[in-house]
Amino acid sequence: MTQQRLALVFLAGATAALAASDWSNQGIVYLDRSPHVVLHPVPVHAVEIGKGFWYGRRAANVERSIPTMLELLEAHGIVENFQNVAAHKNAPHNGPLYTDSDLYKWMEAAAWSLQSGDNPELRRKLDSLTQVIASAQEPNGYLNTYWSGDMAPKRFTEMYRSHELYCLGHLIQAGIAYYRSTGSTSLMNIGERFASYLAADFGPDKRPLLTGHPELEMALVELYRTTGEAKYLHLAGYLLSGVETARLHLTPSQTTYLFSGLPFTSRTSLVGHAVRAMYASSGATDYYAETGDQAYGKTLETLWQDLTRRKMYITGGVGSRSEGEAFGEPYELPNDQAYGESCAAIGNMMWNFRMLQVTGEERFADVLERALYNGVNSGMSLDGTLYCYRNPLSSRGDKIRNPWYETTCCPPNLERTLAELPGMFYSTGKDGIYAHLYHNSRLSWHLEDGTGIAIEQKTNYPWDGGVELTVEPARQESFTLHLRIPAWASEVSLSVNGQAVNAPAAGSYAAISRTWKAGDRVSLRLGMKPAIMTANPLIESDYGKVAVQRGPLIFCLEQPDQSAPVGDLVFTGTREPFQEAMHDDLLGGIVELSHTGGVWDPPASAAPLYAPLPAAQAWARRPVELKFIPYYAWANRGPQAMEVWVPEAAPRK
Amino acid sequence: MTQQRLALVFLAGATAALAASDWSNQGIVYLDRSPHVVLHPVPVHAVEIGKGFWYGRRAANVERSIPTMLELLEAHGIVENFQNVAAHKNAPHNGPLYTDSDLYKWMEAAAWSLQSGDNPELRRKLDSLTQVIASAQEPNGYLNTYWSGDMAPKRFTEMYRSHELYCLGHLIQAGIAYYRSTGSTSLMNIGERFASYLAADFGPDKRPLLTGHPELEMALVELYRTTGEAKYLHLAGYLLSGVETARLHLTPSQTTYLFSGLPFTSRTSLVGHAVRAMYASSGATDYYAETGDQAYGKTLETLWQDLTRRKMYITGGVGSRSEGEAFGEPYELPNDQAYGESCAAIGNMMWNFRMLQVTGEERFADVLERALYNGVNSGMSLDGTLYCYRNPLSSRGDKIRNPWYETTCCPPNLERTLAELPGMFYSTGKDGIYAHLYHNSRLSWHLEDGTGIAIEQKTNYPWDGGVELTVEPARQESFTLHLRIPAWASEVSLSVNGQAVNAPAAGSYAAISRTWKAGDRVSLRLGMKPAIMTANPLIESDYGKVAVQRGPLIFCLEQPDQSAPVGDLVFTGTREPFQEAMHDDLLGGIVELSHTGGVWDPPASAAPLYAPLPAAQAWARRPVELKFIPYYAWANRGPQAMEVWVPEAAPRK
Repeated sequence: MTQQRLALVFLAGATAALAASDWSNQGIVYLDRSPHVVLHPVPVHAVEIGKGFWYGRRAANVERSIPTMLELLEAHGIVENFQNVAAHKNAPHNGPLYTDSDLYKWMEAAAWSLQSGDNPELRRKLDSLTQVIASAQEPNGYLNTYWSGDMAPKRFTEMYRSHELYCLGHLIQAGIAYYRSTGSTSLMNIGERFASYLAADFGPDKRPLLTGHPELEMALVELYRTTGEAKYLHLAGYLLSGVETARLHLTPSQTTYLFSGLPFTSRTSLVGHAVRAMYASSGATDYYAETGDQAYGKTLETLWQDLTRRKMYITGGVGSRSEGEAFGEPYELPNDQAYGESCAAIGNMMWNFRMLQVTGEERFADVLERALYNGVNSGMSLDGTLYCYRNPLSSRGDKIRNPWYETTCCPPNLERTLAELPGMFYSTGKDGIYAHLYHNSRLSWHLEDGTGIAIEQKTNYPWDGGVELTVEPARQESFTLHLRIPAWASEVSLSVNGQAVNAPAAGSYAAISRTWKAGDRVSLRLGMKPAIMTANPLIESDYGKVAVQRGPLIFCLEQPDQSAPVGDLVFTGTREPFQEAMHDDLLGGIVELSHTGGVWDPPASAAPLYAPLPAAQAWARRPVELKFIPYYAWANRGPQAMEVWVPEAAPRK
Repeated sequence: MTQQRLALVFLAGATAALAASDWSNQGIVYLDRSPHVVLHPVPVHAVEIGKGFWYGRRAANVERSIPTMLELLEAHGIVENFQNVAAHKNAPHNGPLYTDSDLYKWMEAAAWSLQSGDNPELRRKLDSLTQVIASAQEPNGYLNTYWSGDMAPKRFTEMYRSHELYCLGHLIQAGIAYYRSTGSTSLMNIGERFASYLAADFGPDKRPLLTGHPELEMALVELYRTTGEAKYLHLAGYLLSGVETARLHLTPSQTTYLFSGLPFTSRTSLVGHAVRAMYASSGATDYYAETGDQAYGKTLETLWQDLTRRKMYITGGVGSRSEGEAFGEPYELPNDQAYGESCAAIGNMMWNFRMLQVTGEERFADVLERALYNGVNSGMSLDGTLYCYRNPLSSRGDKIRNPWYETTCCPPNLERTLAELPGMFYSTGKDGIYAHLYHNSRLSWHLEDGTGIAIEQKTNYPWDGGVELTVEPARQESFTLHLRIPAWASEVSLSVNGQAVNAPAAGSYAAISRTWKAGDRVSLRLGMKPAIMTANPLIESDYGKVAVQRGPLIFCLEQPDQSAPVGDLVFTGTREPFQEAMHDDLLGGIVELSHTGGVWDPPASAAPLYAPLPAAQAWARRPVELKFIPYYAWANRGPQAMEVWVPEAAPRK
C-alpha cells in the first residue's frame, strides 16, 4: 500500500522542475505548483511593512536580535564545532548534540531578513558560514558536528535522540531561504547532498530511518518544491509513513514522545513533545499539499480539532507540560505551570499557515494570528535581546527572559518568524487575492494571471480595527479581493469607494468581487470591543476566571500597573465597560485597558489553604481598578507577577 | 559546632540502655526515654480495634494484602535476589535497584500485624526470610542485593541514586517491628551490623555519607532508642547535618530533589521529591525528640507551615508533580494531574504523628487524621488487593489501581500503616492519657505512674460523631483524660457520667481532669455537619469550586452515582442542606451525601475551548441531584471519572 502510494507520488513529483529564474517569486513555502492547495503565499519581499506594531519588533530583530544571537552562537563555540570537524580536530563538542540546528535556524532568519532590506555584510557572513559548514561535510554528504570524530561510528544508531535528521531539516530550510533571498544555491546544495545520501541509502528495503525530532519532513517537501526532485518528497513520505517501528525497536513511549515512528495517519490526538507534534503536522500538511492523500487530510483535521477544542492556550501557546515539553491530557492547561515553549507556538503558526494555504479557510488564520500576536510574540523582549523559552499565563515573578539558553532553539526560531512575517500577509488564489493580516504595509505583487497588483494598507492595527486599503491593479481587471474577517471581530463594516458593502460574518473571508481599477479604496472596520473571555469548564485552571481579549491581543494583569498584589485581584462587574487608553511611552506603545475589580482583604497569602464556607464568606473584597496590558509585553520591566486568567468576583458576596 | 553538639548528644544517649524486657512496651516509635517529647505512644497491642470502619480495612490487610503481596514479591524475584547474593550467583538482579526495601517494608507490615493477632505461620515466614537476608550479608555488615556481585565495586560511589542507605533504613525498621512484636532481635541485628559498619567507617573525618533517599535517619534514631547505642543517633545527626555537599560534589538540583545533602536546618520550604522530604522531616523530628536542638525545632515548624498553608491537598496528599514525584510551587495543587503518591501521604502521617508526640498539639493530629482517612486510605482498594500509586483528586476514568508496580513501594507501605494503626490511637503524658483517634476499640495499658488503665470506645466513627468512652483505671486515681476535638467539628458537646462539661473549642484537646474510677463514662459528640469547603484563591485549580467534607472524610462525585457526566456537574445552592444516608451495601458501607446541583446543557465537551461572555452566558444549567461518596472509596467499581473539587454554579446565571 505505502509503496504503491509513494510510487504514484513519485510520478506526480517528476512533472515539477527547478526553474532557476523563479527563486525570487517563491514564498516562505512555495506552493505555486502544489496540486492540492487553494492559496499561494506571496514572497517576503512582496510586502513592505510600514510603521506600526511590527515595524518596531522587526527593526529590533534585524538591529539587535540577529546580530547579538550570532555573537552568542560564536561565543559558545557553535561555529567552532564545524571548524573542528573540518580540521579533523578531535576537540570536545560545544553545546547540546542538536546545536548545529541553532546556527542553521539563525542563518535562515538572517537569510529571510535580506528580502526586507539587503545587507551586504550579512550576506558575506552567511557566505563565509556556508563555507565553514561545507568544509565540515563528508564526501558522502553526511554532516553533523556532534556525530563526528569519535562519535561517527554511532551515526544512525540512536535516531530516537540523535537529531541528525532534525539538524539536516534546519540546514535545508536555511539553504532554501538563502536561495529564495539571493538566488545562491550554495547553502541549499549542502543540505541537498546530505538529503541525496539519505534518499539513496535509506528506505523500507534499505536501512531504516526515523526523524526522531520531526522537522526534516517539511524541509524535504520544500526541497522537492524547490528542486523538482521527487526523491525528496518520496523520502518525506517514507518518514511520515512510520513503518520502521519494529526495525528500530521503538517503544510506545518513544513513538508518543517523538511524534514519529508510527504512521502519521494513525495519530488521533496530539501527544508527546509539542514542538515535534507541531513540526510533524506541518510536514504532513506539506505532504498533503503535494499528494492530496485523504488519509493525511482526515488526520490533520482530527488533530486540529484536538488542538483547538482541547489543548491550546488562549495565547495560541501549546504544550502544557514541562515534563517532556509535552502536550497534556485534554483540557490540561495550567497557567502558572504552563510550559508553552516559544518554539511550539511557532510550530502552531507554521502548521496553521500551511493549513490556511491548503484550504483557504479563515479558522486557520485565526489560530495563526492568535499565536503570532500572543504566544509567539511574548517570546522576544521588546528590545530584542531577551527571550522566553517558557511562556506561562501566570507568574509570581520568576525570571522568565534570558539572552541565552543552553538549548537555544527558541531565540533563532523567533528571529526567523519575524523575518518571514511579510510572507504571511497575502496569498493569491485562482480568483484573486487574499489578505490574511493587517498592518501599515504595501504589497507589490501580481495576480495569478500575471497582472501586477499593489495593495496599500493604512491602519493602526492591532490597536485599532480600521483598515483602509488602496488597490492598484496594473490594469483594470475583474477579480476577487478576499479580506479576512477575524472571528474575534465584535462588529464588521465594509465599504468600497465609500459605498457600503454587506458586512460578512466574523470568522470568514469577505469576498469582494468586482472590476478593480487603480486607486479603488476599501474601508474595513473590525470592532475591537474588549471581550471578557471564559474558558470551557473542563479546564480546571480557568474555572470561575475571565481573560480579556481585544482584537487579536490577549491582555494580562502585570504587577507594576496594579495597586495590590496580582494574586489578590479579582474581576468584578462584567457588565461594566473598559476604559481604553493608548500610551505611546509605555512598553513600546500599547493600549492599556482599565476595569473595575476588587482585592482580597486580608490578602490571600494570609488565608488558610482550605476553609468551610462561612469562614470563606468572611473574606472582604474592596474595590480597586484593574489595569490590563497586552500579554506579549509582560516581563519587560524585570521579572513580575502576572495573570492572564483573573478570578471573577467571589462566588458568594 | 556540629561536632560539639553531637558530642553532647552522645553523652545524653549513653544514659539509655537496652532493657531486654521492655520490648513489648514499645510503640511504633518508642519515646519513653526521649527527653524532648510531651507524649509517649502506646504499643500496637495495647489497642484492640473493634468492629467498624478500620476493622474491615485491617482484616483485608491481614487476610489479603499482606499474603498476596508476599506472593508477588516472591514471583518477581525480590526474595531470590537475596538467595542469589548468598550463593554468590552472579545472576541478573530482579526489579529496581531499591527493591530490597519493598521486602523489608512488607516484613515490617507483617511484624506489626502480629501484635493484633499472632500468626505462627507468618512468624515462621518472617524467620525464614530473616535467614535468607542474613545469608546475603557480608562479614563487614554490608547488605544490598543490587550493589553486589559485579556492582560491588561501586558501593557508596553513587549515593545520590543508590538507595543503599534507604534500604538499610527499611531493614532496621522491619527489624525493630519484629523485635517489638516478638522479642526476637534476629532481624534487627542484621540491620544493626550494617549500621555499625557505617558508624565506624563513615563520618566527617572519615568517608562521606549521604542518605540520598532519606529514611535511614528515623530508623537510626529508632535503633538508638531501642538499643541505647548513641552512635546511631550520632550517625543520624551526621546524615541530617548535610555537611558533605562538597566532598560528594552534590549539585543544587540534587540537594533539592533528594532533600538531603544540605543541612536539614538550612531548609526553608518543602521542595523536591515529596516522600524524601516527608521522611527527612520525620527523621529530623525524631532527632529533635532526642536532642532538643532548637534549630531543628524552628526548621520543622517552618516546613510544617509551608506544608499546611501552601502545599497540601485537602486529602492530606502531598507532592503535586509527576515530574520528580515532587512538591510544586506554593499553591501548585492540580487535581487531575495531582501526583499525591500514597507513600508521600504516609510520610505526611509519619511526620505529623511524630510532631504530635513532641508537642502534644492538636493541629498535628488533624493533619495525621486528614491524611489517614483520605489520601492514605484511598491507596488500597476495599478488597485489599489493588493499590494506587498516584492519588489524583480528579479523574476522567483512567485506571488508577493495580496489584503490582515495578516500583512497588506504596503497597507494603500501606500495609504497614494499617498494621501500625492501633499504635496511633493513644499516647500517655505525664498528667494522664491522650486519645487521638476514635473507633470502636479497647485500650489496655497503663498510666505513666504504672497504674493500669483500660478505655473502651463505643462509636460509629467516622460515620457518626458520637463517642462513648468507658474509663477503667485499675484503681481510683486523679489524672487528666485528653480527648481530641478535631478542628473540623461543627459543634462539640461533652459530658462525664451524664454531667455536661464545658465544651472545648474545636482544634484542641479537651482536658478532663478528675479522679477517675472504673466505669466512668465520657460522652463526646463531635458535630459532623457536612461542610462546603473552599480553597485559598491562590490555588489556581480550585477557584470557584467547592469540596465536601464530613467529619474527617473528604467526599467526591464518582460517575456510577451520577445521572450526567461528572465533568458536567456543578454545585448549586450552598445554603441548601445535604441529605445523608448510610448504605451498608455500598462500597463496604458508607454514608452517601446528596445535594442540589446542576448539569451543563449542552455538555462541556461540546462547548468551545474559549468564548466571550455573551456566548458563555447562553449555557444552560438544568437541576440534578449530586451524590457524594467518601473519596477513599473511589475507583472500587472499576476505573471511573471522579471529582473532589466541584465547580460551583455558573458564575453568571
